[in-house]
Amino acid sequence: MQTYTHHNNELSMAHLGNEVYLKGWAAKVRNLGGLIFIDLRDRKGVTQLVVKPENPFYELALKIRNEYVIEAKGIVIERESKNKQLHTGEIEVDVKELILLNSAETPPITISDNTDALEDTRLKYRYLDLRRPVMQNYLIKRHQITQAIRQVLVDEGFLELETPILGKSTPEGARDYLVPSRLYPGTFYALPQSPQIYKQLFMVAGLERYFQVARCFRDEDLRADRQPEFTQIDIEASFVDMDDIQAIIEKIMVKTFKKVLNTDIQTPFLKMSYQEAMEKYGSDKPDMRYELLIQDYNDVFKTIDLPLFKGKSHVRGLLFEQGQTITRKRIDQYTEVVKKNHGDMLAYIRMQDGQITGSIAKFLTEEQVKSLKLSEGSILFLVAGEFEPVSQALGALRIEIANEFKLIDENAFKFLWVVDWPLLEYSEEEKRFYAKHHPFTAPVDAKILKDDPKNAMAKAYDIVLNGYEIGGGSIRIHSQEVQRLMFDTLGLSQEDITNRFGFFVDALKYGTPPHGGLALGLDRVVMLMTKTANIKDVVAFPKTQSAKDMMMQAPSDVDQKQLDELMIKVGK
Amino acid sequence: MQTYTHHNNELSMAHLGNEVYLKGWAAKVRNLGGLIFIDLRDRKGVTQLVVKPENPFYELALKIRNEYVIEAKGIVIERESKNKQLHTGEIEVDVKELILLNSAETPPITISDNTDALEDTRLKYRYLDLRRPVMQNYLIKRHQITQAIRQVLVDEGFLELETPILGKSTPEGARDYLVPSRLYPGTFYALPQSPQIYKQLFMVAGLERYFQVARCFRDEDLRADRQPEFTQIDIEASFVDMDDIQAIIEKIMVKTFKKVLNTDIQTPFLKMSYQEAMEKYGSDKPDMRYELLIQDYNDVFKTIDLPLFKGKSHVRGLLFEQGQTITRKRIDQYTEVVKKNHGDMLAYIRMQDGQITGSIAKFLTEEQVKSLKLSEGSILFLVAGEFEPVSQALGALRIEIANEFKLIDENAFKFLWVVDWPLLEYSEEEKRFYAKHHPFTAPVDAKILKDDPKNAMAKAYDIVLNGYEIGGGSIRIHSQEVQRLMFDTLGLSQEDITNRFGFFVDALKYGTPPHGGLALGLDRVVMLMTKTANIKDVVAFPKTQSAKDMMMQAPSDVDQKQLDELMIKVGK
Repeated sequence: MQTYTHHNNELSMAHLGNEVYLKGWAAKVRNLGGLIFIDLRDRKGVTQLVVKPENPFYELALKIRNEYVIEAKGIVIERESKNKQLHTGEIEVDVKELILLNSAETPPITISDNTDALEDTRLKYRYLDLRRPVMQNYLIKRHQITQAIRQVLVDEGFLELETPILGKSTPEGARDYLVPSRLYPGTFYALPQSPQIYKQLFMVAGLERYFQVARCFRDEDLRADRQPEFTQIDIEASFVDMDDIQAIIEKIMVKTFKKVLNTDIQTPFLKMSYQEAMEKYGSDKPDMRYELLIQDYNDVFKTIDLPLFKGKSHVRGLLFEQGQTITRKRIDQYTEVVKKNHGDMLAYIRMQDGQITGSIAKFLTEEQVKSLKLSEGSILFLVAGEFEPVSQALGALRIEIANEFKLIDENAFKFLWVVDWPLLEYSEEEKRFYAKHHPFTAPVDAKILKDDPKNAMAKAYDIVLNGYEIGGGSIRIHSQEVQRLMFDTLGLSQEDITNRFGFFVDALKYGTPPHGGLALGLDRVVMLMTKTANIKDVVAFPKTQSAKDMMMQAPSDVDQKQLDELMIKVGK
Repeated sequence: MQTYTHHNNELSMAHLGNEVYLKGWAAKVRNLGGLIFIDLRDRKGVTQLVVKPENPFYELALKIRNEYVIEAKGIVIERESKNKQLHTGEIEVDVKELILLNSAETPPITISDNTDALEDTRLKYRYLDLRRPVMQNYLIKRHQITQAIRQVLVDEGFLELETPILGKSTPEGARDYLVPSRLYPGTFYALPQSPQIYKQLFMVAGLERYFQVARCFRDEDLRADRQPEFTQIDIEASFVDMDDIQAIIEKIMVKTFKKVLNTDIQTPFLKMSYQEAMEKYGSDKPDMRYELLIQDYNDVFKTIDLPLFKGKSHVRGLLFEQGQTITRKRIDQYTEVVKKNHGDMLAYIRMQDGQITGSIAKFLTEEQVKSLKLSEGSILFLVAGEFEPVSQALGALRIEIANEFKLIDENAFKFLWVVDWPLLEYSEEEKRFYAKHHPFTAPVDAKILKDDPKNAMAKAYDIVLNGYEIGGGSIRIHSQEVQRLMFDTLGLSQEDITNRFGFFVDALKYGTPPHGGLALGLDRVVMLMTKTANIKDVVAFPKTQSAKDMMMQAPSDVDQKQLDELMIKVGK
């Protein structure tokens, strides 16, 4: 097949008089005073073709409809009325030969950047939705981002190694997807939630530096930014400490942002302890693109004799200085936000026309008011209770206000390392510890893990971008003894340890080097870099929020024969 | 953690006197006249450390056993007795500081290139098996090969795009692995046997050039060179013909062999029709590293009045000229090979000491013998019957003899395109057609597919290396009408088409460009390039022939709770 000479974004005045050969889709066809204009589209752009009435292909050109696939040979000529918006807008191609490669019915969604099609329709006709230039751009960027990240890792001596998709079910945390085995009826493989154990085994094997663009699976009830399968850039290295991994990730980000977005990213990234992040931002993934910090107001309010504050260990608040326009109704909505995010009640005080008003204004002494230093128009939101829920509630309110008042610099990329994590968290309900990251995270001090697990700290670090956790990592436990202690502390029985992690605990005793790593959420990184709010936009064939493939209609019924071979039956 | 200054393959006389910092595993520890020598190993190589009795770390050095993980700082000195076999054999490192990072129990398999461990043991302790340099090399080569292939594709404008692992079951050919859905009890996802439909949809979407290092799954009874999951380099392009795809694949091979093995590959690759491959080699994937061609002997033998030949449409044979040493017993074994490969019986004639002997010698006239032109020591093997089974049987015998008599140039890489495939094959048992490749392969002439499907030819091409099919591809059907005709010819009912491929047939009508592609079997390519005979060697964590993970013990039992959530039960 004759190859095209140019993509449809390439021709300009420099090509005047050239004979060119183009292919693509008819994006728009117009018949103006006998001249037929066709906007020819491919993944790179659009070029205008013109077919004159005396052209032997004029009859054919008359038949071309939107989305027909055509080839055209012609001469580049200057346009009479130029289109400054279009890269190729100064020229058009005077068609000498036109070939129809395929016709098209009218598509159920319009092929243009703007669409008013419903999401379900777009997902059902994904192959048409992906024909829209804006959608193609997401996938092209995803490709570029993946290549840029990989290049840094390859240059740094990391080996790209593949790990199995058919693994073993070791549920701890999320739910596994299971795959029935035909050869061993009644047993199951599980799809990996991450290649965590495999990548640590690569370190045991002495491969020293590993990465993988790894598909991972979680059978969880989905949120807007989650898919049942997702991709992580999975990284592990031996003979490293936290700084080494962080330096590699920073290098990845600098080079990838430069290459793909031509944006300069400053390093080293800011570091903040988990504790400070909770204190100031009420979040373990603070958005650093704006201030509006949470502050302690214990001094002022703890003495006030109101049920709201009484007996509460913390009174914390957000002081917002441009609060003039916030209505009572809006504050009621804020209260809902606070309640949804573990907060008890929302109190507030505002300074308006030199007067203090608000739900608790009348309980304050003049001196107390003075100490708050409220400027005209400012409003102070207060929540009282335990440190974590209070901070989380105010953190959520902080985001609400930032969005509403456009405090966020949408062009900024603000990276942050959240460090100094607690190793464990205690579930009061279940009366047991859970690993804050995962049970392979190394403690800063194994003695504290043993003697005072509540206060054990982890060699863990999350990377946060614009308020999203885009990756989490840690130095891993490389001592068999400490790994056993960790499992013990988590309340796993000896039998549990043996059944689920026996081979892994075994592996640790044959000369395991110190090692650590990180996993970057590729979908989220692409989402943030392309500035879309919808993770589905950056996944070629995504599933709905209820884990359904609208295009293929999966999951689906299967033949009874298939179930018989697997010796499984459907039903309670 | 302090970074090492060198890997263990790097130091030479050029570094004499340098202070260096090394890490790795104690591969061998010797105590010679008070001096302790430690071979320190990492993924790159080995460096000898020496610790003298006066060294403050001598006591520690005495404790080092094989596979302990250590760090050493020291000075590069010249060795007294040099080891020419070793890259670093002229020097050693006089240790100044030694740190024990982790101890090791005696491993159950020896960590060296040669092993006598059983395969099951090696698979169980895969993390130790992978510590053997020869095994690490397979994975390192796999990494390099993958990068080299990807680089060509990226440079050629292909986009690396991901397709779902959780797809829809559309069994046609191999068995699908199924994944029960929790949200829609009784329905199932299927793991992809290949991303075939997705990649064609990318073409419908106008993404024009796609590739993926794609994981694929087949729940088949495994052969030695098959794994339940495998990796293919999946490639698709629009506006191409067969030559275009073949040219890209040839470029991939040339660049990859040069980069990874420093081997020059000649292009264009030889092309041979399927018919000729069967005629001369009795195989659709002929090994071109040696001759020993199959020939027709109809003229001579069809007239002979023996049940062996009577009424048979074809008498074909292999003439082997160095057959002196072949015993009767061996010929009996050859007969088994022939029978296992669709052959009926094996006859033979040999020329020894000027005499004709062999199972059918006495039935031949002198003239007939003369026409065979048998040289001294040669032996002619004959099989009679239908063309395909006869040729396959002789093809298998050809391989058997080539291996036995070392006719194969083990250093050669002989590529071949097998082209001009029939589109369909007819199953006499089931009285229906099957697609020789898959139902999306374009016919050379759709009219013949309609009028005379038995004789329809396909726009298909397989790439063969050293007797292995390493990839298969085709130009696809891009017309909805032809696709429907194809499904009809395969005997799919309208309901079947709608249920299984409805969305795809639908997609074809909205302006689908001509397109085609190929999938390369990465595991096989790596296997051939690293010259191992065992596909498990090039897969990091392979499964056994019965699809078992010996290390993790998967598949395994799962909790009843997991099954309850999926609403499935085990049992007939």
